[in-house]
Order: sequence, then C-alpha cells, then structure tokens
Amino acid sequence: MTQERWHQLTYWPLIITSVIFIVVYSWQVIADLQGPAYAVARIIIGVTWVVFAVDYVVRFALAEPRWKWFRGHLFDLAVVAIPALRPLRLLRALTVVQALQRTAGSAIRSRVAIYGAGAAAILIWIAALAVLEAERGAPGANIENFGDAVWWAFVTITTVGYGDFYPVTTWGRIVAVLLMCGGIAVVGVVTATVSSWVIERAAATAGDDNEPATRGQMRELAQQLAAVSAKLGDPPAR
Amino acid sequence: MTQERWHQLTYWPLIITSVIFIVVYSWQVIADLQGPAYAVARIIIGVTWVVFAVDYVVRFALAEPRWKWFRGHLFDLAVVAIPALRPLRLLRALTVVQALQRTAGSAIRSRVAIYGAGAAAILIWIAALAVLEAERGAPGANIENFGDAVWWAFVTITTVGYGDFYPVTTWGRIVAVLLMCGGIAVVGVVTATVSSWVIERAAATAGDDNEPATRGQMRELAQQLAAVSAKLGDPPAR
Amino acid sequence: MTQERWHQLTYWPLIITSVIFIVVYSWQVIADLQGPAYAVARIIIGVTWVVFAVDYVVRFALAEPRWKWFRGHLFDLAVVAIPALRPLRLLRALTVVQALQRTAGSAIRSRVAIYGAGAAAILIWIAALAVLEAERGAPGANIENFGDAVWWAFVTITTVGYGDFYPVTTWGRIVAVLLMCGGIAVVGVVTATVSSWVIERAAATAGDDNEPATRGQMRELAQQLAAVSAKLGDPPAR
Amino acid sequence: MTQERWHQLTYWPLIITSVIFIVVYSWQVIADLQGPAYAVARIIIGVTWVVFAVDYVVRFALAEPRWKWFRGHLFDLAVVAIPALRPLRLLRALTVVQALQRTAGSAIRSRVAIYGAGAAAILIWIAALAVLEAERGAPGANIENFGDAVWWAFVTITTVGYGDFYPVTTWGRIVAVLLMCGGIAVVGVVTATVSSWVIERAAATAGDDNEPATRGQMRELAQQLAAVSAKLGDPPAR
Repeated sequence: MTQERWHQLTYWPLIITSVIFIVVYSWQVIADLQGPAYAVARIIIGVTWVVFAVDYVVRFALAEPRWKWFRGHLFDLAVVAIPALRPLRLLRALTVVQALQRTAGSAIRSRVAIYGAGAAAILIWIAALAVLEAERGAPGANIENFGDAVWWAFVTITTVGYGDFYPVTTWGRIVAVLLMCGGIAVVGVVTATVSSWVIERAAATAGDDNEPATRGQMRELAQQLAAVSAKLGDPPAR
Repeated sequence: MTQERWHQLTYWPLIITSVIFIVVYSWQVIADLQGPAYAVARIIIGVTWVVFAVDYVVRFALAEPRWKWFRGHLFDLAVVAIPALRPLRLLRALTVVQALQRTAGSAIRSRVAIYGAGAAAILIWIAALAVLEAERGAPGANIENFGDAVWWAFVTITTVGYGDFYPVTTWGRIVAVLLMCGGIAVVGVVTATVSSWVIERAAATAGDDNEPATRGQMRELAQQLAAVSAKLGDPPAR
Repeated sequence: MTQERWHQLTYWPLIITSVIFIVVYSWQVIADLQGPAYAVARIIIGVTWVVFAVDYVVRFALAEPRWKWFRGHLFDLAVVAIPALRPLRLLRALTVVQALQRTAGSAIRSRVAIYGAGAAAILIWIAALAVLEAERGAPGANIENFGDAVWWAFVTITTVGYGDFYPVTTWGRIVAVLLMCGGIAVVGVVTATVSSWVIERAAATAGDDNEPATRGQMRELAQQLAAVSAKLGDPPAR
Repeated sequence: MTQERWHQLTYWPLIITSVIFIVVYSWQVIADLQGPAYAVARIIIGVTWVVFAVDYVVRFALAEPRWKWFRGHLFDLAVVAIPALRPLRLLRALTVVQALQRTAGSAIRSRVAIYGAGAAAILIWIAALAVLEAERGAPGANIENFGDAVWWAFVTITTVGYGDFYPVTTWGRIVAVLLMCGGIAVVGVVTATVSSWVIERAAATAGDDNEPATRGQMRELAQQLAAVSAKLGDPPAR
C-alpha cells in the first residue's frame, strides 16, 4: 500500500474523527463535565486519540525515506504525543493548505484570505478550550468560564493584550505562546495579501503595451526569424 | 428597474441617511439622553433603520442571481439585523472602495492611504460610541465617558492594549473584536503601502535601458521582421 | 524671492533653532524647572516658536498656488498652532526624507532603514518629554519621572503596551496617539524593508540569462534588424 | 595575518566559547548561585569575556581601513563593553546570516524562516536570563523565577504585553527594549516571507508563455539575426 492510497482511504474518516473530537472536547470543557459524563467524554476522546496515533504510525511505516518524513512531520508527532496540544489536532484539516501550492494568479489572494480566516477561527476556538481546561480551578487563575476564554483568545491573537485575563499555569502559557505565534502569522498573512494587491495595482500601467514582454512572444519571434533565414538559404557565394 | 438604476437613485439619500444616523446616534450616546429626548432620538434612529432595511430588501429583490448576491452581502445583512452593529452601517459610505479596483499606477498608493485613514477614523468613532452604549452602567465596567471610550478605541486599534480600559459586557467585547480586526487591517494597509513604495524604488535602476522589455516593443519588432520577410518573398529555388 | 531661495537661506538657521529648542525643552522638562530658571527656559522656547511661526508665514506668502501649499502643510500648521505638539517641531529635520524620492536601486533600503531608526529615536525622545510635561502632577497620573516616560514611550511605540504606565490627561493621550501611529509606521517600514529584500532575493535566479529582457536589449535588436532590412533593399521583383 | 585567516582559525573556538558562556550563565542565573559556586561561574564567564575582548581587539588591529570596520561593528563593541548586554554575545553565532546574502531563488524563503526562528529562540532565552538577573531581588520587581521570565519574554517579543509581568529596573528595561526591537524584526521577517510567497504566486500565471521574456532568449535571438545578416552579405548593389 502506498502513502497516497492510505491518504485517500483515511481522508474522510479522519475529518469525521476530528469533528467528533472537537464536539466532544468542547462539550466536556464548556459544560465542565464531572462523574460518569466526564468518563464517557474521556473515553470518546481516547478513541479519537488512538485513531490519530494509528494513522501516524502507519504513515511513518509507509514513508520513504522515513527519516525525511519524520523531520517534516514533527508537528504531527507533537500533537499525538503531548496531551495539552491535543486540540490542535483539528488543524490537520488545514493541511489542505498544500492545495494552495498549486493555485496561481490573482485567485491566490482570496484563497489565502479564506484559509487564513478559517485557521484563525479554529485556532481561537481550540485555544479557548485548551486554556480553559488548563486554568479552571488553578490557584490565582482568572480565566474561569468559556466566554472569558474566547475573549482572551481574541485579545491575544490580535496581540492587543489588555491584561484583564492571562494564563498562570504552565499548560495555559504553552497554549498562549502557540496562539501568539498564530497571531503573528495571521497579521503576516493579512499584510501579505494587501501588499500583493497594492503592489500589483501600483505596477499596473495603462494598457498591455507597457507590460513586460513575454517568453511566448519571444518564441513566436524566433520562429518568424527562422522562417526568414530559411527563405535566404545558405549565404550567397560571391 | 435594474440594480444599477436603484444604486444611482439611492446613492445620495443613503449617504444623507447615514450622516443623520451618526449625528443622532452620537448625540444620544455622548449626551446620555433620558426621557423624551431619548425617545425622539430612538425614533429617528428607527426611521434610518427602516430606510436601510428597505434598501437591503429592494437590492435583494433586484439581484440576479439572488443567492450569489446574498453570499456577497452577508455584512450588509448583519448590519441590518443585529442592533449592536448598527453604527457600522456608516462604513457603507466606504463601499466606494470598489472605485479602487479601477485605479492603477502609483496613484493607487495615495488612494489606499486616504481610504485607510478614513476607514480607521470612522471605525474609531463608531466603536467608541458603540462600546460606550454597551458598557455604561454595566456592573464592573470601566469605560464610563466618551473621552475614555475614544482613548480606548485608539489603544485597541493600534493593538497597544494598555489594559487601563477594557470592555466587560458581551456587546462591548464584540465591538472590541471588530475594532481589533480593523486594527490588523490598518497595520496591513500601512505596511503594504510602504512596501509597495520601497519595492518599486529598490527595483528602479538607472535609466530606461534596464527596465524589462515591453510587449509593445515586441510587437513593433515582429512587424519590422514581417516587413523583412515580405521583402524576401518566397525562398529562392536554387 | 522664491521659495527655493528661502529654503536655502533658512535651512541651517532652522536646524540650529530646532536643536536649541530641543535642548532647552529637554532641560526644562527633565529638571522640572521652577521660578526664574523656568521663566528663562520659557522665553527661549517662545523665541524659537516665533522663528518657526515667521518661517511658516513667509513660506505661505511665497507659495504658489497658496491653497495647494496650505493643504500639503497642515502638519506644519498644527505644530505651530498647538502647544502640546511643539516638541514635534524637531521632526522638521526629517523633511529631508524627500531626498529619498530621488534615491533608487538597492541603496534605498539602507536609507529607509536609517531614516526610520532616526525618526523613531526623535519621536521617542520628544514623546517622552511631552507626556511627562502633560502628566507630571496630574491627579491619578503614573508617569512621574523622565526614566519612566522614556520606558513608556518604548513600550508604546512597539505596541507592546504592558499597562504599567499610561497617560491619563487629554494632552498626554494626544501625544500617545501620535506615538502609536508612529509605532505602526515604524513596523511598516521595518517590514517593508525586509520584504523588499526577501522578494528581490527570491526573484533572483542563477545567472543573468533568466533575468527579464531589457528595453536596451530590445532597441539593439531593432537596430540590428533595421540593418538587415537595409541590406535587402526593396523586395526583389521576380 | 589577514582578517580572513583569523576568522577561519577562530570560528570554532568562538562558537565553543559562546556555548560554554551560555551554559554557565544559564546555570548561574537559573540556579541563583551563591558563594563559591557563584565565584566559579563568574570566573568562567570572565574568561569567556576575555576571549571575546581579545578577538575584538585582534580583528580591529587587522581591519583595513580600521575606521570603516569600527563603524560597521558597533554592536560587537557594545556587547564586549556593557555587562548587561553580555548574553547577547551568543547572537554572534548568527553572523552566518551573511551566508544569506549569497543564497537566491525560492530557497531564500525557507532559509529566512529558519534563521528568523533560530534568532527568536536565542533572543527569548538570553533575554529571559538577563532580565531575571537584573530583576531578581529588586524592590517592586515581579519577575522572580525563570519560568515567569521566559513567559514574559514570549509575551514581549510577540508585542502582546499583558502587563502581568514587566521589568522595573533600568537594566531590565534595556533588555526589554532590545527584545521588543527583536519582536518587531521577527514580525517583519514573518510578514516578508509570507508576502514574498503570495506575491510570487499571484504573479504566476498559467504556463511559461506568459512569463517575462528573459535576457538569455534575447541573446539567442540576436545571434540568430546576426546569422541571417551574415547570409545576406553586403547590401546587394543593383
């Protein structure tokens, strides 16, 4: 079985597993489940974890060469191995970003904008869940309900940072650092998209005649010239 | 009646309605109107709301195809439907931004800068009004007068975020999130404009001879070559 | 007398007046002068103000057309008219930025970087002075000495905004807003400079052969072709 | 002995000295050494300082012309001369950045990203150490352990600035200012890298035929034309 085949087979099951994970995890954290309900939620989350772990192992086994694949998928390993990062697993859905590599022309800008907004929304949601789970009940913590957690996530990802809410636990701070990095990336993507548009418009001048000459035009000209040369035959002997 | 015709007919009435709205709304919020004056202000605001709602419905009815128009005007719907977003209605005046799509050359930079500054100014003003209306009198709120609200709006849109003032109500936080997004966009626009200028100057080299060849030059050359070819006639038979 | 001539005559006197102003103003604010020393400092500052006001009036009188000049120099008017903005007068020294308009090629990047750093340094210094003068002694103020004021200016211009110090007076907040705008501009300039470099390097490919063809090459080719055409004379009659 | 030769000889010894310095300095600050252990750590750090000072002096003596070298290495002088900046010495390892100057094509983006991430990581580590050494035990200080110092460094470099921790000493604030400047640079690098990618993709259009014509194509065409001209010989005498 090739990696490509495995990807095709597991694409939809993994998306569905991701959605189940996020729904159950949101429910567990927001409702602050206790007792049997908590146990049920943890079991479902555990099963989704096993699914992702198996997927990671199989992809590693199929990879060729394995060392290169391992280096290129450290993020996947971190998500599978470290409990606090579990919610980030949903970002996997964004690996479709690689589809961007194949897009070109001005359509790239709207795609970049859409993916950027989508990634920011998922990041805010899961960061709010993860920070709430880490902070709730910790001594000295000030993020105590989901509304405040979402507000904190917005204030952090935009790098505003009022300081009315901030994490105090180690896990909460790790989540915050990842969210800040996401914030810088979002600012970068917004700026890049606007820049690209401004630069293109500023470079655009009246009419096609002032655009740089193209390679296609060049090839046509070369053929035309070759035809002229053929008409002449060999240099005339005088 | 076409959408185009409706646009022409309603352009000035809607701008005037927007201005009436912002003046009355500013007066109501800043003066913290009570009793009959409050009732009058709310009635005028209600009338401006009806005008915008009718405009939305008519444009939807005239749109072709309707579904595509609907998807492209979700922002308009949100402004009409959600009370807390009402002040954002004034941003409609900025839809002239579409005029930018037709501008080209280096003039684009000053236009982008002017629209960016204008949008930021309107955004700060209406965010200050909206946050003040949402926060004033709320338990634990610290934004209690218009001066503080404007100061808070500046501190937020620039992503400085001292934390001396911050919203505590849900509506106030929604306004804050929209303002932060505006702040990121403003930073993006400033950076993009400067970038475009620096990149253009860095690419500029001494004299026209080192600029990329143009398509116009290419076409001229091809014509010249065709003339040479015509002079030669058919390949000489030897 | 032309504007150009006035500029040449007043260039050095105005720079020197600016330096005198900043030295005396720094001394007055940092040493928190009282009594006679304060009076002397204010008189010297008053004289520098008169010099700048005279310069503004003469330039306005010489301008042609006056209305356009007026619109393009609103910043100069604000600096002369509003006391709190007086320190910003030193930024005049940076009008040499117009020299940038004439620079091209990759040298533009180091110049932009140098001017950006210089402008940021002047802005931090005068914002610290102005905010300290506005805040010192105000009820509830927390910026009470020059060290804290400089620290506050750095925290603000970089948009970090810890909130350990923040202005509470109206003048102090106006200074802060100008400083924040300066901060966004500085970020924009840094990003633009780095962007320009990365974009240029990314576009650079191995060897000159893959660079876009130049207009100079095109003109040479057209001449070559014209020579061929001349050799052929009129189309041979066969 | 030439500067080049000195560089080759000292490259590895200086890297090793840097590593020894950072390890011992981290150990001294994190473990808050006292008594004999502190003395030992300071002696080792002193020896590394002597190594760097000697390197600076030798390079200055070998430089040609010395004044230009001096101006271009003010950062090196500051690192050697000012105790609080000592940890920044490790940034020397990043002078390999000059290797970037020789890289071109799209590979530049991944290199810029890697160096940017590496520089940010070193900067955060040494800023946390330096701020902790400056702040620990100072009256009114709130950064009292290494975990909080690292968290503070992340919050500062991303310009979020919650204000839950901030330096209160002069040395601590100098470290903070350098870290903020680093933060702006990191944002600039991220944005530049994304911008470059978006701009390139947006400019890319379907197929090679629409790329700008290259100088290589131009030269080929000119040779082809010269061949045609040679075939024709001198203009026919009629």
